Amino acid sequence: MQKKMLMTPGPTPIPENVNQRMAEGMIGHRSSDFTDLMNSIKPKIKDVFGTKDDVVILSSSGTSSLEAAMVNLAAPDEDIVVIVSGAFGARFRAIAETFPYNVHTYEVEWGDAVDPGHFKEFLSKLDNIKVVVSQACETSTAVLHPITEIGQIVKDYDKDTLFIVDGVSSVGGTKFNLTESNIDCLISGSQKALMLPPGLAFVAMNQTAKQKVQSNDIPRFYLDLNQYFDSLDKDTTPFTPAVSLIQGLDAVLDSIAEEGLENVFERHMKMRDMLRAGLEALDLELLVKDDFASPTVTAFKSSSDELSHIKDELKNNFGITIAGGQKHLKGKILRIGHMGYMFPADIIVVLSAMEGILSKYRQQNYYGKAITKAQEVFFNDL
Amino acid sequence: MQKKMLMTPGPTPIPENVNQRMAEGMIGHRSSDFTDLMNSIKPKIKDVFGTKDDVVILSSSGTSSLEAAMVNLAAPDEDIVVIVSGAFGARFRAIAETFPYNVHTYEVEWGDAVDPGHFKEFLSKLDNIKVVVSQACETSTAVLHPITEIGQIVKDYDKDTLFIVDGVSSVGGTKFNLTESNIDCLISGSQKALMLPPGLAFVAMNQTAKQKVQSNDIPRFYLDLNQYFDSLDKDTTPFTPAVSLIQGLDAVLDSIAEEGLENVFERHMKMRDMLRAGLEALDLELLVKDDFASPTVTAFKSSSDELSHIKDELKNNFGITIAGGQKHLKGKILRIGHMGYMFPADIIVVLSAMEGILSKYRQQNYYGKAITKAQEVFFNDL
Repeated sequence: MQKKMLMTPGPTPIPENVNQRMAEGMIGHRSSDFTDLMNSIKPKIKDVFGTKDDVVILSSSGTSSLEAAMVNLAAPDEDIVVIVSGAFGARFRAIAETFPYNVHTYEVEWGDAVDPGHFKEFLSKLDNIKVVVSQACETSTAVLHPITEIGQIVKDYDKDTLFIVDGVSSVGGTKFNLTESNIDCLISGSQKALMLPPGLAFVAMNQTAKQKVQSNDIPRFYLDLNQYFDSLDKDTTPFTPAVSLIQGLDAVLDSIAEEGLENVFERHMKMRDMLRAGLEALDLELLVKDDFASPTVTAFKSSSDELSHIKDELKNNFGITIAGGQKHLKGKILRIGHMGYMFPADIIVVLSAMEGILSKYRQQNYYGKAITKAQEVFFNDL
Repeated sequence: MQKKMLMTPGPTPIPENVNQRMAEGMIGHRSSDFTDLMNSIKPKIKDVFGTKDDVVILSSSGTSSLEAAMVNLAAPDEDIVVIVSGAFGARFRAIAETFPYNVHTYEVEWGDAVDPGHFKEFLSKLDNIKVVVSQACETSTAVLHPITEIGQIVKDYDKDTLFIVDGVSSVGGTKFNLTESNIDCLISGSQKALMLPPGLAFVAMNQTAKQKVQSNDIPRFYLDLNQYFDSLDKDTTPFTPAVSLIQGLDAVLDSIAEEGLENVFERHMKMRDMLRAGLEALDLELLVKDDFASPTVTAFKSSSDELSHIKDELKNNFGITIAGGQKHLKGKILRIGHMGYMFPADIIVVLSAMEGILSKYRQQNYYGKAITKAQEVFFNDL
């Protein structure tokens, strides 16, 4: 027997009460039980997304919310800018290129954040851009982009240009405010900071964006958000929804409200700071600078051999699963997820295991060193 | 406290062992744990779909499998025939009309089955039909269409015309054999006879259909089946899948194999025959003739007042949820689902409750009458 710890940047561990809620019994999706459930969720989920408008719940993976945002908010033949700073920006570009758009890519070195001044200059040279798309946290690099500054640049460029933000690995783990950040559409998935199994996707948008959805005639059916908005007014969904996950969502939103949103965000930042201090004490190089380090996932570099040793040892001897790099970062980084149902104590455990693994691997004594740094971060703030 | 019985034609009750499996703990979708899971599912799910080819698992509602079949198998500007015999045929037509196809509708009276001779004549008058689409069971009317005869007609018309069958409310409850029935693509969802919560959709197809998927250039991303087939070869999925539902699916497929597929189908037919005999003993008119009665759902007619009384009393006093009619059958029929994790004893319970409800409502003695007929069906076969 081995206690398992899933520390990937999604899926993430499911709290016990959420598992229980998801198993409480199936209900008809056209029953009053279900409309009561949706009615209970509606206000609570707005708080987490930082919006006063409705948040659409799709029964599908996070990727579907990227496609939904794209095909509902960009009309055929429009010019759009996709910021690509990692694997999920690249996926967003692949989605955009699937449909009849003129796609302009703003490339950012993987591991770096968008430089606002440079991006402003890039954008100013383009005409008639109707949509700009960016990750908030690029999961593949653990960078949190300066979304509020990018939003301001987009609106300064043209107040009618829509700004779509991918919050799949950040919503629920870091603060959003759609109005303050000039975000027209914020999307996310269930399996990251929202502590649910994968299978739900979310689309929050303001009234300006919603109008564009209505007028957009690009062919789509399952991802046609007009149907979801109409249904949401009646506390229901246009197609049979993933009922058990939505039951779980209600429990998750209650847990978040109980801890307090600000406390949830504080906890994520504390885990990030503890982990980063600990990794540095292990002489591991962080991929991302402090200013742009995501509160939800952390990436570090080392030799390919050492990384693969760390990952295997964590999995085989400690039951801890962490993630490797994606695409051209494969073999160059490892990523530790610290979002959702995860706590400072979990950071202590993974650092403790890594101290031992590296002490043996490098024949150098790291015992207590990473943990001490993490403790300093934790206790200094108390 | 009240024991709940969900007897709608989807979602359906979840077995306890499936709930437990879904709560056993989240696993990374890029881990060997997950590829092992997919590898375990692959052969078992083929048996249930009656195919030797791969079955794609989508993380989304059943409706998405209708759209996936359509946009992957019908190319732009092609002529397609949609058989519409109820609400889900109408949905399939709505999907078809969303995309650039020439859509021909073959209308069937709601509650009737396709008349093969008549359909053959209809089809023979059309040129260059590339795809024919039909429900197997039309959930909204409880009709099971003569799919094998329709499949033969389609292939006699043109051996290259693809036949797509919607098995959302029948796969797992009634036998399919893609080759024998000339079905090129069979789709389904998780929340009906497959005893899972909603949130998974399935697409089975033969090699001919798969080739068309590859050559079809209609824009699609999340529902582009090429990506799923490529991933399936590596026992994985292109996007983060609904892991907990897939864990549950593995348990469901084991349960089905343990009971034996033929026994599962027998059980469904027995529940149908018991229920139909009982409803007739209650002087309720069945919507569908014996020859086309689905083994998974049964519809009966009565006055709007009586139907609404039956439905409310079942819900309020017995905890039993059944479904009303959809679209123009609203207020004209009720539907009782009897698929998946449901047994002859459940039929006895609902008939027993209805005997009492109707005895009081009609001031006429029905005690024991429906149950007796159901018992005769059950025990005669033993």
